[in-house]
Amino acid sequence: MIDRTTPPAGGLQWLDANGPHSDIVLSTRIRLARNLQGFRFGPRAQDSDRRAVLGAARDAAESASMLHEGDAYVIPALSSSARQLMLERHLVSRDLVGSDEGAPPSHSALLLAPRAELGLMVNEEDHLRLQGLLSGFRLRETWRMVDALDDELGERLRYAFHSEFGYLTSCPTNVGTGLRASVLMHLPGLVLTQEIGKVLQGIGQVGLTFRGLYGEGSEVVGNFFQLSNQTTLGKSEDDLIDHLQKIVEQVVQYEVQARAVLRRDAPAVMEDKVWRAYGLLRYAHAASFDEVMNLLSGVRLGISLKLLLKPSVYTLNQIMILSQPAHLEEMAGKSLTAAEMDIQRAMYVRAMLRADGDPASTEEMNDQG
Amino acid sequence: MIDRTTPPAGGLQWLDANGPHSDIVLSTRIRLARNLQGFRFGPRAQDSDRRAVLGAARDAAESASMLHEGDAYVIPALSSSARQLMLERHLVSRDLVGSDEGAPPSHSALLLAPRAELGLMVNEEDHLRLQGLLSGFRLRETWRMVDALDDELGERLRYAFHSEFGYLTSCPTNVGTGLRASVLMHLPGLVLTQEIGKVLQGIGQVGLTFRGLYGEGSEVVGNFFQLSNQTTLGKSEDDLIDHLQKIVEQVVQYEVQARAVLRRDAPAVMEDKVWRAYGLLRYAHAASFDEVMNLLSGVRLGISLKLLLKPSVYTLNQIMILSQPAHLEEMAGKSLTAAEMDIQRAMYVRAMLRADGDPASTEEMNDQG
Repeated sequence: MIDRTTPPAGGLQWLDANGPHSDIVLSTRIRLARNLQGFRFGPRAQDSDRRAVLGAARDAAESASMLHEGDAYVIPALSSSARQLMLERHLVSRDLVGSDEGAPPSHSALLLAPRAELGLMVNEEDHLRLQGLLSGFRLRETWRMVDALDDELGERLRYAFHSEFGYLTSCPTNVGTGLRASVLMHLPGLVLTQEIGKVLQGIGQVGLTFRGLYGEGSEVVGNFFQLSNQTTLGKSEDDLIDHLQKIVEQVVQYEVQARAVLRRDAPAVMEDKVWRAYGLLRYAHAASFDEVMNLLSGVRLGISLKLLLKPSVYTLNQIMILSQPAHLEEMAGKSLTAAEMDIQRAMYVRAMLRADGDPASTEEMNDQG
Repeated sequence: MIDRTTPPAGGLQWLDANGPHSDIVLSTRIRLARNLQGFRFGPRAQDSDRRAVLGAARDAAESASMLHEGDAYVIPALSSSARQLMLERHLVSRDLVGSDEGAPPSHSALLLAPRAELGLMVNEEDHLRLQGLLSGFRLRETWRMVDALDDELGERLRYAFHSEFGYLTSCPTNVGTGLRASVLMHLPGLVLTQEIGKVLQGIGQVGLTFRGLYGEGSEVVGNFFQLSNQTTLGKSEDDLIDHLQKIVEQVVQYEVQARAVLRRDAPAVMEDKVWRAYGLLRYAHAASFDEVMNLLSGVRLGISLKLLLKPSVYTLNQIMILSQPAHLEEMAGKSLTAAEMDIQRAMYVRAMLRADGDPASTEEMNDQG
């Protein structure tokens, strides 16, 4: 592995919007928590534990076929802005890079596979967090990838494992499989038809949980919901994933139905709503991130309903990531005040939409004829 | 004169935005109230009076150089939609055409000069209302035009005139000169800087009054204010007009200063505001008249501040008139429900803005380079 101090140029393949149901499920992520025998983990870990864990993890990765051609990002070696960029791209977690203010956690690192869809976070909440991230709704494919990496690393590292409880983790809620599978869903139909509350309640009753776009505690913005398993104990990995698969398929169907209802019962309102969202994104000269996310949600729905022919979903996905603060500062080549940030964001969004060309639907094209 | 039953194809010269200060003063209107000796006027007028007045007015117009090549619109001979169209174009008053529901007032008519900037309403509140309407801030020019028509008609008709009071009118507030001069001003700067209240208060103290775009009792929408003289008695016509001229010049200066303050103190906010207004007009698929007027106000301000290069002010002025209900129904070729009206309006506005081309400012053009 080669040590890097600047974020990967790519790492955004999961945005390419080519997976199944990609108009509703943006991406699939699976994460496995693992700890190493012989080292303290969680809050009790000392600097010496963390150093040793990173060394062991690097050694294992160097000889693992899935990682050895990849890159190593040792977090304390990165600039603050590089850490933010990687966080905004969902390559690392907030726990791995630490808060903006304080020093980054010692000996924390991301070991990233060449295609960036697979990675290993070291010295996060647990010693190791294996992470796979694919575009669209691809739970089983993501699981095979993460499972294969787990096998490779497991041959080289001694995982902390208890015959009764399973894999031991820093937080008890992860004990057992250590598995957290989640899908990022766009559910504007259920929000607009006000059925979302009922659906989320149902999700809770079947052992799943939901969060906003940026993980635990983050607000729901832009009608994005991350659905994931709540239980990690007492079921096999395959059972957990099959269960999530089944429930997400149901939610996809509910969302499809809700969109059909909107199209049937309020076509003019929907059309106006999605075009206004486009108009504001296309021409606003200052916009907060939350506003952009909410407007993008409208445009995304419009494309799914074929009311708009452009921009592409890939463009929308890119904007979602690249209109975040660290990315905007990188584009501007300097740090930005809050007001400058909103201006830079709007400028970037305008340029992206302009580059994608005329969004005119068939109806609009006929107007012009 | 030729009798017409369809509204004039033109009649919108006053929208051409070529007069002085046309970015602040849209148009200048002067109206003279006159009544004829020997006929009852006001509410006491009988059908026989009204018939005789129309006959006398037509005879006088036929031999008046300024009107004889024009057209006669006898209101009861017009369809309801034709009456509405003329009302929306500001060619006639609500009093002349009557309410939507009831029958139109008997023997009421508009005698319109060939260029439509000069007209004579017959059997409105008074027997005669001479009206001149020019684009921009042109009080003296408009007055010369109306005064000349008054002279021509006065040679042919016996006006009701009292040596002490002056011209007699149906409503005492018009007695004396019978003159009402008004300018239609766009004052977004004073509204945004919240100085408009003070300015309007000052206007009241110097004997002027203000109304919204559609005359007495109409709400202020789109930051349009009609300023006019309140007094018609005890001063000469020239004095009334000079006074209005002076006050409007002051208000123009206040508005210019307010816009300079906005540009200096909140350039980013202004830029965002005007571009958002453009974006919504350019892409909304349903919009009420009031919303369109308010958004047009933002775009108009943006053009004045050179933040937008397009659309033209003439286009904005056209939209102001043609996005009203009767005009939209004429375009659609059928009557429209309220919801259909909002859709038709948005479609028309989109087509107008699209036809005017890319509104990109210098800044935006550089973005593209």
